[in-house]
Amino acid sequence: MTLPLAVSLGDPAGIGAEVIAKSWERRELRALPAFFVVGEIEAVRAVWNGPVEAIASPADAQACFGRALPVLTVGDGCAVSPGRPDIAGARSALDALELAVGLTRSGAAAAIVTGPVSKAQLYGIGFAHPGQTEFVAERCGIAAANVAMMLAGPSLRTVPVTTHLPLADVPAALTVELIVGKGRTVIRGLRRQFGIMRPRLAVAGLNPHAGENGALGREDIELIAPAVARLCEEDEADLVGPLAADSMFHASARSRYDAALCMYHDQALIPLKALHFDEGVNITLGLPIVRTSPDHGTAFDIAGRNQADPAAMVAAIALASSCAARLAAG
Amino acid sequence: MTLPLAVSLGDPAGIGAEVIAKSWERRELRALPAFFVVGEIEAVRAVWNGPVEAIASPADAQACFGRALPVLTVGDGCAVSPGRPDIAGARSALDALELAVGLTRSGAAAAIVTGPVSKAQLYGIGFAHPGQTEFVAERCGIAAANVAMMLAGPSLRTVPVTTHLPLADVPAALTVELIVGKGRTVIRGLRRQFGIMRPRLAVAGLNPHAGENGALGREDIELIAPAVARLCEEDEADLVGPLAADSMFHASARSRYDAALCMYHDQALIPLKALHFDEGVNITLGLPIVRTSPDHGTAFDIAGRNQADPAAMVAAIALASSCAARLAAG
Repeated sequence: MTLPLAVSLGDPAGIGAEVIAKSWERRELRALPAFFVVGEIEAVRAVWNGPVEAIASPADAQACFGRALPVLTVGDGCAVSPGRPDIAGARSALDALELAVGLTRSGAAAAIVTGPVSKAQLYGIGFAHPGQTEFVAERCGIAAANVAMMLAGPSLRTVPVTTHLPLADVPAALTVELIVGKGRTVIRGLRRQFGIMRPRLAVAGLNPHAGENGALGREDIELIAPAVARLCEEDEADLVGPLAADSMFHASARSRYDAALCMYHDQALIPLKALHFDEGVNITLGLPIVRTSPDHGTAFDIAGRNQADPAAMVAAIALASSCAARLAAG
Repeated sequence: MTLPLAVSLGDPAGIGAEVIAKSWERRELRALPAFFVVGEIEAVRAVWNGPVEAIASPADAQACFGRALPVLTVGDGCAVSPGRPDIAGARSALDALELAVGLTRSGAAAAIVTGPVSKAQLYGIGFAHPGQTEFVAERCGIAAANVAMMLAGPSLRTVPVTTHLPLADVPAALTVELIVGKGRTVIRGLRRQFGIMRPRLAVAGLNPHAGENGALGREDIELIAPAVARLCEEDEADLVGPLAADSMFHASARSRYDAALCMYHDQALIPLKALHFDEGVNITLGLPIVRTSPDHGTAFDIAGRNQADPAAMVAAIALASSCAARLAAG
C-alpha cells in the first residue's frame, strides 16, 4: 500500500491552510497522491468550507482522502485569526513540523511537505535553527552543512552553494571543498530522488562573464574550476563550468543541464523566481527522507482572504510523491 | 524627412553583417525604418546573397533602402574570412564605429546602432576603452561615469549600477552618490527616450532578501535606502526599494515598474537574459544621441554559417528609431 504524505500546516495564521485545502480540491485534476495535514484543525476550518476530517493516525489518511481533507491535529484547539500570528500559533507550527518529521522518519508517511512558517514567530519561542531546513536535517541526524537546498520549477532546478549570507561575505565563504560537497549532494539527489542516472550539472561562475580569464576576479579560476575538475574526475556526472551566470538560464541553455549549481542566494533564486515564481518548490537534498516545501512565505497580508495561489503547494506535493517513490524503489 | 539610422558593422569576421542583412530582409514585416551599414561592404557580401549597394553619403540611404541594403563602406577592401578575426578587421570595425558616431553626432543619422566587436581584437590595435559604450561616450564629450547601460527586453528593462567588476569589489564600489547618479540618468532616459513622463523605478537590494533588516548585510540600509529616499525627494519618478532581488522579476512584479535599478552586473543580466535572451537590446542612457546595440557578441564560432538569429539586431534597430523620434520631438 502506498504511504500518504505528511503536510505540516506551517503557521496557522498564514496561508498554509488555504493552499493545502486548495491542493486537496485539485487532487483529481492534478492526480495528487493521498496526503494528510499535520496541524491545528481549526486553522483549516477558519479559512475553508470544504470537508475536513480529524484522523487518529496516518494509517487512516488513505481511506479518508477521497471524501475529505484528513487532519492529524496538533495544538491546543484555541482560536485562530488568519493574518494575526501569535505565540500559540508558533508553538503549534513547531509541534506540527516535529510530528510530521517524526512520522516520515518512522515510515508512517512517505515524505514530508512543510507549510510556510514565520521565522520571527519561531525565534520568539526559542527556536534556535536558521529555518525549517536545518531543523529537519538535525532531526534526521544530518549536519546542516551536508544538505543542499534545491529550488525546482518546471524548466529549471538551481542549488545555491552559499545561502543566507551578506553578498560581501560570499567570495570568502567559497572553497573548493564546499563547492565539491554541494555538487556531490546534488548529484546524489538527482540520481536517487529524480531518477537521473547520469546527471548533467551546469556550474555558475561567481564574477561577471565567469571572470573573463581572471580579468574580473580570480575565484572562477582558483575555486570553481578546480571544484568542477574534481567532480569531473569522480565521474558520477557530466559537468560544465564555470559558466557566465547571465548566459545559462535561457530556454536552450536550460535544456542542456539537470541542475545549475550557483554560488550565492540570488544567483540561484533570481532566475528560478523570474521564470517560475508561482510554482517553485524547495527540496532539501542530502536527507534520508524526502522533504519539499512551496517556495513562498506565510503571506500574512493575504491570509484568510481566499487569494492565495496553491500552485507551489500542489507542485511541492507532487514532487515529494515522485521523489519518495524513486527513493523507495532505489 | 526622416533621417536614416547608422548601423556599424562590428567586427567583419563576426555575425554583425549577417544579422544586419537579415534585419533588412525583415524591414517590411517588422516595419523597420531606413538604415544603412557603416562598414566593410565585402563583409556583407561574404555572408549574404541579397542586394547590397554602396552609398556615397547617408542622404542616399533612404532612396536605396527599399531595394537594397545601403552600405557606407569603410576599410581597405581586403578579403574577409567569417569566423577568423584579424588586425585589418579590427581596424575596420573601429573606423566604422568612429564614422557612425560622427555621422550621428553631426545630424546625418538619426541614431547609431553598434554591431558586435571583439574587445580582444580591438585591444590588439591599441583601443584603450573598456568597450564601445565608453568610446561612444567620449566621442560625445560625456564622462563614462555619467552614462548608464540599460538592457531592454519586451517585458523588462534593467540597469546595473556597477558593471564589469569582480563580485567581491561590488559592495565597496557602491555609494549613495553612485546609486543616485545612475538613478537620475535612468529617470531622464526613460522620460526623454522612452516617453515615460513619470517613470516607475524598482531598486534592487544588494543582499539576500534585501538584507533582512540588516541581519544579512547593511548596504541595503546604509546605502540603497538613502539613495532611494533622495531620488524620491527629487520627485521626478516613483521609486520602490530596496527590494528583495529574487522577488522582483516575475511577470506581475515587472508590470509594476518601468526599469529595475540593479546593484551589479549579474543581478541585472541574469533576469534579462533568462527572459529575453534572443531579443535583448543594450541602450546607453545619458548621451546626447541615441545608441543601441544587440546584447550579443561576435559569435565567431557560427559566423558565415547562416545560423545567427537577427532578433536582437531587429529589436536594437526598432528601439533606436523610436527613442530617436522621441528625443527629436522632446
